Amino acid sequence: MSDVLRLAQRARVAATGLAITSSEQRNRALLAMSAALVSRESEILAANRVDLDTAREKGTPDGLLDRLELNSARLKSMADALEALSMLSDPIGEIIEGRTLPSGIELTQVRVPLGVVAMIYEARPNVTADAAGLCIKTGNAVILRGGSLAHRSNLMLSAVLAQAAEAEGLPAGSIQSVESTEHAAAEELMGLYGYVDVLIPRGGAGLIRSCVENSKVPVIETGIGNCHVYIHEAADAEKARRIVLNAKCQRPSVCNAAESLLIDASIYERVLPDILKELVANGVTLFADEATRTLDAVDGIEPATEEDWGAEYHDLRMSVKVVSGLDEAIDHINRYGTKHSEAIVTEDYSASRRFLHEIDASSVYVNASTRFTDGAEFGLGAEIGISTQKLHARGPMGLSALTSSKFLLLGNGQIRE
Amino acid sequence: MSDVLRLAQRARVAATGLAITSSEQRNRALLAMSAALVSRESEILAANRVDLDTAREKGTPDGLLDRLELNSARLKSMADALEALSMLSDPIGEIIEGRTLPSGIELTQVRVPLGVVAMIYEARPNVTADAAGLCIKTGNAVILRGGSLAHRSNLMLSAVLAQAAEAEGLPAGSIQSVESTEHAAAEELMGLYGYVDVLIPRGGAGLIRSCVENSKVPVIETGIGNCHVYIHEAADAEKARRIVLNAKCQRPSVCNAAESLLIDASIYERVLPDILKELVANGVTLFADEATRTLDAVDGIEPATEEDWGAEYHDLRMSVKVVSGLDEAIDHINRYGTKHSEAIVTEDYSASRRFLHEIDASSVYVNASTRFTDGAEFGLGAEIGISTQKLHARGPMGLSALTSSKFLLLGNGQIRE
Repeated sequence: MSDVLRLAQRARVAATGLAITSSEQRNRALLAMSAALVSRESEILAANRVDLDTAREKGTPDGLLDRLELNSARLKSMADALEALSMLSDPIGEIIEGRTLPSGIELTQVRVPLGVVAMIYEARPNVTADAAGLCIKTGNAVILRGGSLAHRSNLMLSAVLAQAAEAEGLPAGSIQSVESTEHAAAEELMGLYGYVDVLIPRGGAGLIRSCVENSKVPVIETGIGNCHVYIHEAADAEKARRIVLNAKCQRPSVCNAAESLLIDASIYERVLPDILKELVANGVTLFADEATRTLDAVDGIEPATEEDWGAEYHDLRMSVKVVSGLDEAIDHINRYGTKHSEAIVTEDYSASRRFLHEIDASSVYVNASTRFTDGAEFGLGAEIGISTQKLHARGPMGLSALTSSKFLLLGNGQIRE
Repeated sequence: MSDVLRLAQRARVAATGLAITSSEQRNRALLAMSAALVSRESEILAANRVDLDTAREKGTPDGLLDRLELNSARLKSMADALEALSMLSDPIGEIIEGRTLPSGIELTQVRVPLGVVAMIYEARPNVTADAAGLCIKTGNAVILRGGSLAHRSNLMLSAVLAQAAEAEGLPAGSIQSVESTEHAAAEELMGLYGYVDVLIPRGGAGLIRSCVENSKVPVIETGIGNCHVYIHEAADAEKARRIVLNAKCQRPSVCNAAESLLIDASIYERVLPDILKELVANGVTLFADEATRTLDAVDGIEPATEEDWGAEYHDLRMSVKVVSGLDEAIDHINRYGTKHSEAIVTEDYSASRRFLHEIDASSVYVNASTRFTDGAEFGLGAEIGISTQKLHARGPMGLSALTSSKFLLLGNGQIRE
């Protein structure tokens, strides 16, 4: 039997045990996990140093090294997040609906854990604590498979967290990490139909695509965002300027940052130049259509290609296009967007209504920055990720995205006639 | 471009149009579809006769021929179902939740169509009308792929329904059928990531397994049921007898019929003989463990094999096992069951509580027949199928299982600090 299959079998057994733990017991485990991250800091940082040294030898860029690095402050913030999770209300056991059926059977639909959750993710080791915490909170067993750069950090973190959880009486196998960094191990995990109830990839488009293509286990796709801001002809120019700047520049590396700016032909000569100047002043490189470039508002605008319209840059690049009006804007966004977060800036009531209803995306904004698409901002408490698919969960996912339901039926000898 | 891809592209465009139709418009289309099934009866029955003749030439068994055959009464009942659907309340546009965020942005989460739904199903042509109706009700474009036996019937039904829907102003491409009966066409459909939002297979375990194994599109698994009735030592013997007989014999071909009977060792000698006699008197063939067979209650009990514990017979066969008590019963069911419907018969309060919480299934019963697992019985209105997976929907699926959601955010120039 392979290591991955053995792990999955242990997880399956653990899930059965976890399903009957109390909320109180799981919250105690979260507090113990939180404390262990602090009390075992030296072991964790030692493992992290080995990862950092290996990564440096490989010539890993500074940005990635920074994401990989742990220190006291970062461990403390991971510990704080676990503590905060313990204080959130528990979705498990919630009665979703219920009624007495004509036969007299009393039916209730209750929220239950999914069972076994697998997470495949990339560089940052904080995802290990985050994912383990979210799964324990919701009574799921978790199988973690982090990126190879953070391999030793992840194994140490998951061992520390698992030991703390088990010491509080949670089943062995509730938190496990895949030991192998081989691609074959991830592929095997994707094939474990019947053992794994859901696979959640967290990372770049390549990882997510690979999970969708190869997984026999249900996948929740997360966090691919080619988001647009569309300045309608009835826009307030100052709101438009503020929103575009914020959506593009406030944190360009995240999935809810805007990648593309659309503006109506009837106003672009008046409104666009100032916005382009401010974008460039903030370090943004522009890729634009012919109309924008002939404005000559700023230097160095590159011609936009078909690829630019579909690109998720994740950095200070932005595509710009002049559109004939609302229809073209909606068509363009529904064609090139990734159904994540889309915004219109307008003072026109009917235009706002059409945009809200006709744009196919998880989060559709009128006169606000796309940067708000986030579990905490939406008031969901913890966030598991941002789903860009339509099944099970869409948009920022709170704890309930890690749950399923079952119907309980209390009878008195009823049979079906 | 392949035929299937062309179909999918039309469906994608139709879905955009359908998403902005009103509930009233879709209900009018359902009534027109219902009327068309009656007014175009002769064309539909002529196509069906060709299928029946072809099937007879191939030596198709009578049972399948009966499922394939359409007649006035059956068409009328399909038409009535579409009319009933038009009268159900519409889940689309429902506001699931909402709040004003600290920034002053007003957030609402609304129910929207999934987009493009693909259904792959087997022999019965009534599924064509049923699936088309459910999808139109919920604003989804549908791509239908029925079994080859009913090929001409399905194409004619889907053409009649599509024409009626389009005549009421629904977009062209809202209802389409795959022309080819080749397996490659079904496989292509499963690969249309980005065009198809969900694939719902309806049919036997082989079909469902094939979709799970091969699909890159999200799948909702339906209707595989290896259901158990467990007679606990504190059972009322008369309730146990009634429930076992009903769960096994009332309609043995359906997924919520019981396939396996478990009974506690402390009572089996007293309670089991009468039940076995009645099962046999009702034509049931038994496959049982050593303890049951040495009871010598009835003749001709076959020894149960490992395969019997996992079997979904779909007919008048049943496996029987004596268990040591509640723990063994729960373990056995969680190991061999398909997480569909499971029942305990007991008068013991604590045993009932443990069974409800520890059995991992869509529907868990105390003192009632598993045969109640059904959308209509559960009060859900229309039923799309019975999900035996945990993601998106579990158990009988009502109209809301064919929906997704989106967040609408109304701002006034808000940006993220």
